Amino acid sequence: MDITFNNDPKLSILIPVFYLAWQDDFLTKKEFNALNDFINKQDWLTKAEKEFLKTKIDYTSPPSRSDLFHWKEKIDIALDNKQKPTNLTELGILIANEERQALTDEDIRKIGNAFAIMESELGIMSREVLSGFKSKRNTITHTYKTVESFDIKKLTDFLDGSQAETINKVKALIASPEFALDIPESIMEYREKVLDWSKSLSKHELGAYAYPKEHGGKGDIEGYFSVMETLSYHDLSLVIKFGVQFGLWGMSILSLGTEKHYKKYLRDIGTLRLPGGFAMTETHHGSNVKGVRTTATYNHTDRTFTVNTPEKYDRKEYIGNTANHGEMVTVFAKLVIDNKDYGVNAFVVPIRDAGKNVLEGVTIEDCGHKMGLNGVDNGILTFKNVVIPYENMLDRFAQVNEKGEFESPIPSDNRRFFTMLGTLVGGRIGIPRSALAAAKTGLTIAIKYGDKRRQFGPEGGSEVPILNYRIHQRRLMPYLANAYAIHFGLQYLTKRFVNRKEEEMQEIEALAAGMKSYSTWNTRDTLQECREACGGKGYLSENRIDDLKNDTEIYTTFEGDNTVLMQLAAKNRLGEFRKQFGEMNVSTIFNYVLDQAKTSITEKNPFATRNTDEQHLKDKNFHLQAFLYREKEIVGSAARRFKKLVDDGLDTFDAANVMHPHMIQIADSYLDRVFLEQFQANLDLVTDTGIKEVLEKLYNLFALNKIEEHKAWYLEQGYMEGAKTKAVRKLVSQLCWEIRQDAVPLVNAFNIPESCLGAIVTNKAAEA
Amino acid sequence: MDITFNNDPKLSILIPVFYLAWQDDFLTKKEFNALNDFINKQDWLTKAEKEFLKTKIDYTSPPSRSDLFHWKEKIDIALDNKQKPTNLTELGILIANEERQALTDEDIRKIGNAFAIMESELGIMSREVLSGFKSKRNTITHTYKTVESFDIKKLTDFLDGSQAETINKVKALIASPEFALDIPESIMEYREKVLDWSKSLSKHELGAYAYPKEHGGKGDIEGYFSVMETLSYHDLSLVIKFGVQFGLWGMSILSLGTEKHYKKYLRDIGTLRLPGGFAMTETHHGSNVKGVRTTATYNHTDRTFTVNTPEKYDRKEYIGNTANHGEMVTVFAKLVIDNKDYGVNAFVVPIRDAGKNVLEGVTIEDCGHKMGLNGVDNGILTFKNVVIPYENMLDRFAQVNEKGEFESPIPSDNRRFFTMLGTLVGGRIGIPRSALAAAKTGLTIAIKYGDKRRQFGPEGGSEVPILNYRIHQRRLMPYLANAYAIHFGLQYLTKRFVNRKEEEMQEIEALAAGMKSYSTWNTRDTLQECREACGGKGYLSENRIDDLKNDTEIYTTFEGDNTVLMQLAAKNRLGEFRKQFGEMNVSTIFNYVLDQAKTSITEKNPFATRNTDEQHLKDKNFHLQAFLYREKEIVGSAARRFKKLVDDGLDTFDAANVMHPHMIQIADSYLDRVFLEQFQANLDLVTDTGIKEVLEKLYNLFALNKIEEHKAWYLEQGYMEGAKTKAVRKLVSQLCWEIRQDAVPLVNAFNIPESCLGAIVTNKAAEA
Repeated sequence: MDITFNNDPKLSILIPVFYLAWQDDFLTKKEFNALNDFINKQDWLTKAEKEFLKTKIDYTSPPSRSDLFHWKEKIDIALDNKQKPTNLTELGILIANEERQALTDEDIRKIGNAFAIMESELGIMSREVLSGFKSKRNTITHTYKTVESFDIKKLTDFLDGSQAETINKVKALIASPEFALDIPESIMEYREKVLDWSKSLSKHELGAYAYPKEHGGKGDIEGYFSVMETLSYHDLSLVIKFGVQFGLWGMSILSLGTEKHYKKYLRDIGTLRLPGGFAMTETHHGSNVKGVRTTATYNHTDRTFTVNTPEKYDRKEYIGNTANHGEMVTVFAKLVIDNKDYGVNAFVVPIRDAGKNVLEGVTIEDCGHKMGLNGVDNGILTFKNVVIPYENMLDRFAQVNEKGEFESPIPSDNRRFFTMLGTLVGGRIGIPRSALAAAKTGLTIAIKYGDKRRQFGPEGGSEVPILNYRIHQRRLMPYLANAYAIHFGLQYLTKRFVNRKEEEMQEIEALAAGMKSYSTWNTRDTLQECREACGGKGYLSENRIDDLKNDTEIYTTFEGDNTVLMQLAAKNRLGEFRKQFGEMNVSTIFNYVLDQAKTSITEKNPFATRNTDEQHLKDKNFHLQAFLYREKEIVGSAARRFKKLVDDGLDTFDAANVMHPHMIQIADSYLDRVFLEQFQANLDLVTDTGIKEVLEKLYNLFALNKIEEHKAWYLEQGYMEGAKTKAVRKLVSQLCWEIRQDAVPLVNAFNIPESCLGAIVTNKAAEA
Repeated sequence: MDITFNNDPKLSILIPVFYLAWQDDFLTKKEFNALNDFINKQDWLTKAEKEFLKTKIDYTSPPSRSDLFHWKEKIDIALDNKQKPTNLTELGILIANEERQALTDEDIRKIGNAFAIMESELGIMSREVLSGFKSKRNTITHTYKTVESFDIKKLTDFLDGSQAETINKVKALIASPEFALDIPESIMEYREKVLDWSKSLSKHELGAYAYPKEHGGKGDIEGYFSVMETLSYHDLSLVIKFGVQFGLWGMSILSLGTEKHYKKYLRDIGTLRLPGGFAMTETHHGSNVKGVRTTATYNHTDRTFTVNTPEKYDRKEYIGNTANHGEMVTVFAKLVIDNKDYGVNAFVVPIRDAGKNVLEGVTIEDCGHKMGLNGVDNGILTFKNVVIPYENMLDRFAQVNEKGEFESPIPSDNRRFFTMLGTLVGGRIGIPRSALAAAKTGLTIAIKYGDKRRQFGPEGGSEVPILNYRIHQRRLMPYLANAYAIHFGLQYLTKRFVNRKEEEMQEIEALAAGMKSYSTWNTRDTLQECREACGGKGYLSENRIDDLKNDTEIYTTFEGDNTVLMQLAAKNRLGEFRKQFGEMNVSTIFNYVLDQAKTSITEKNPFATRNTDEQHLKDKNFHLQAFLYREKEIVGSAARRFKKLVDDGLDTFDAANVMHPHMIQIADSYLDRVFLEQFQANLDLVTDTGIKEVLEKLYNLFALNKIEEHKAWYLEQGYMEGAKTKAVRKLVSQLCWEIRQDAVPLVNAFNIPESCLGAIVTNKAAEA
């Protein structure tokens, strides 16, 4: 009788190993040889039995499909045995002994050792293999899912606060059929659509929100920002068109002009009867706006100004609302009186008549196709001897008097220019809020998709929602926490701006410059991750991440290049630091500060630097002290370093150049601290326990994720040791896992109109 | 007589302080009070003198513009004095003593101390202020510029190597008027243009490069990759159309079919007479391609297969070259014989006739507008009872025999499927090389722009090329180093693939999967930085970063989602590790490995962990050991950790989920090491000293920048101390500064046709 597994059941002990070998090309030729050696060494097998077994591992003659099916059946039965095998030997014994006791206890003892050695030599991990064999599995990973642990509506109310009415009004409008998001392929049609939408917004009295009541507005600046932010769930070309018309153009009149200008222009701007633009940037002067070269020359004989573009690249570039629609623009130009340059001032310059004919002396070119925001008509303006009347000078901060002399309450050109810019800081609040809304939309799309989209799963189990994968959570959850943190931080900035006092302006400008960079960079990174997290679906324009990403791409550049704005914020912090301690004694005082941090706060003692206790890692005071330590240490070392560079003979401009990367760190650490404080402050306001619990988790994730981001710095400083930073990483991962359950409710709390969420969210069938 | 500065010149000592106060709003109200106090305390001033001085700091009544002009004149004269004042006191004394000795030595002594205190209180930094006063400055920052320290042509030759002829042929073609980069606004026109371009490429015999000579090709696979990479300087829709037609479609025939298929199809594919596609991905199965559900049911009576899409979302999605042009596709479907599923196999399925009419049973939808690659006609394919003849099964790895039975030399469905996929690994070489070309184009644009674009400058000096700013260098130079590193690494991958032996395939597949992710993510980050570095100009489509960025955006997803591919590469590494050491003794052996690293290489001794010597930091062996240490430690700890999780009772699927982020690190550290080794190997080949010097710099930047990127990890491990990681950062910064001088020649060495570099590079006037 031929030897078979059936005839000689003890040989079946090797079935699991054989199945493994053939199942997945798990073993190489070399390893087949190892198995061969193993068989040869077994003294409880006869020569004939060995020869039979070797036919099963002949790599030139693989087993048939039905052999494999049969082996798998045997394995499945043994896996269901109540003895629960824990390794390949136990599994093999169960198969061998299935029908009768084919193996003696003596056999089993011998075999056990031999198997252990073989498994080790082949690098097989028994438990892993056994899990892989199971046909039906209920793993944690694939049963995990969304729960609703809090009242979503209450969280929305908490986020919206006093602005709920305005926000809901805008949401209702953008969710209406008139605002259906079908973007025409043709740029010109797209621009007209955006213009029509803008008109509709002004009809609904949303344009003039910030203007004084006596000029057709509501005198509600906070409301204006809420409108702009909420609109940003919709098409962003519309938001920018809106921002150029009612914000930049209208607010330049309000901030730089005087009563006569308000009367003449504001009502028509607010109703969009007078479309206009804001002509500051020149081709050769973008970030360095102080360097603009357009001139406005005063002629005392007829009391007019003549506006000119001296050289080709002194032309105004990227000017929104001008390629097709604008009739007037605020032009920033050097005022020249009697050949003397009185610095940059602002003038209202008509560029088209009401019939849309371009006026004499004005040349308007189209900026053409852009990465995004193609619904905004950006233009290039060149002026040749364009004469405007005396009253077109926006004269709040400087005037030409009756005698034709320059007058200003602010004698320094620099200072006056920066005062003028300061009044326009509102743009640096609107943009980061718009950016935040785009990030929220992206997160809503990606998180809802990840909750539904299934891909891969345990062998024999159903496929798993991709949001259950730890790595997917690590990609998205920290940005969800950032969105909440930035939400609270930007509300704080808005309130500081609305209730500002003159002496706070420098701080608020620095804060706005910094937060604009922080929020827009965060949106860039969030949307990038959302796009990739949605895979191919994220690439289809119908799913909106395309437009959200490409439209906000320029947010990091316009209203001030982020890198430049971060320098600006840092300069303010460094100035504050210097004012506090003075320069001559900077190193002494600095050492004092450091010592204080080291000793009185006692954070750098070995217990604190190594403390990996979860309660400590979630301690708000630990976070705040760690953030403050970073902020103070960085600004202090920057001051020291700059002084040293200059003392060593470097020109201050060269020294500042060396310092730029350090300056970014100053601003970044400052902003991190402010966002942390504001998140903490908002947690204190929550009364509902469900909401408090989930926001605490998000808060912890925000704080610890930032610490992890900067852990190299903390390690370099000896502020934390490796054990602690590793514990932080672990806790961040754990928080991501926990928040995943709340992630869908947390994005639902943003309450974004479904019409703005793209096809993969609204077309439910596609996700199932 | 009234007191004035002229009448009482010693008072002029305060002019610099007053000018400073008014010049830039540098002092607040509080600080004006401090100045007031200072004046009060000076016992060398009369009461009348004090009153006069106070009129100059009355913040309600600022000095006139002509006062400011006059003060500045005085300051300028004093600054030119041969005594070279070094602080505000000395400057003030020079002004006061300009015409006659107004101040006695006794005055000066008293004043010196008082000034020092006042400056300290006001937080004035004298040297900085003095630099700011200077009207004309020649700083290092604004005199720094591009030099040409090596022979660009020679470097191009070195990079192109044996492929120079092919590369230059393609470059000449894409630089020709026929290939002028004007992209139509209409998607349909764009697709036709790309089709025309593709036809032109096949006419120039570039399509069939990789096919056997007997089927109209050149049998030159390496050449095929060079063509695809070089084409990637041009429009990327063309590259993908090219890749789908000649790579995916043609190579699926070549790799999965047999001689009869080659004869029937290859010549027509290579000449584009037979446009086709590659239909693997389904709506519900993208990354998990093994899970595709399309069926091909065998009918033995007439020996045909019937292809079906069982449920709506089992349809084939994103299939390139099908929405408009494709006539046939390779469909991946489960083969069903007698109701038994024989796993995924490949079939040639006609979808249109030569007249472009869609065939019966086939439904083709258009994927619509995408973020990028809109010149490629991606479609959605649904099959309803589409009958294809027996010979349309691509039967290299499996056949249905005469009796209607399934036969395959590879019995396991899994293994067979992955063997089939393995033959298609070429796509994972073409894509990272295409991505690299896009990164090179972006870098060329951004670096050339940064070299010309001037913005800001020292007070009184000319504006500075933005590439002279350290922070701008830090943004771009590391990506330039990466581009070179990845260039050498991908050449290595290509050569390994072209000269592969069967037993190397697993390693090469892992390498290709990893490098595809590494390169495409690097391109994503490079182009993001390039866009921002070009500011508003980077946003205009005419400057090409728009298309480069949006077209390559999907590179991180298609040909395998990067995150999934990194897991794949990591799994291979982990498998190799386990095979080396076996599982049972993993911790013992691991500790042995670690000990070896610690002791024999002696890297973790205090001298090495703290060594900040520049020679050491630039030592190639230090880099290699540090990279290897990271790689080994991460893979070893992953093996230990996974075993622990499973031993603790976690299902292996759950354990694998926890391990995913760790797995990414395995792959990343492995790839870093391979790229480092290949960069080193290429340096050894350079003979020209100029080229060697500049490549050494780039190499050092690549190596040290990677170490800096992972410094938190090295610090956590105790492999480096803070002093060393800080020294690394400083050296990275220094290398960026040095390489900036060579940056333009280094991108010129890529030798990208000027017609592919966008308006800001080609329109020289705009940069001046």
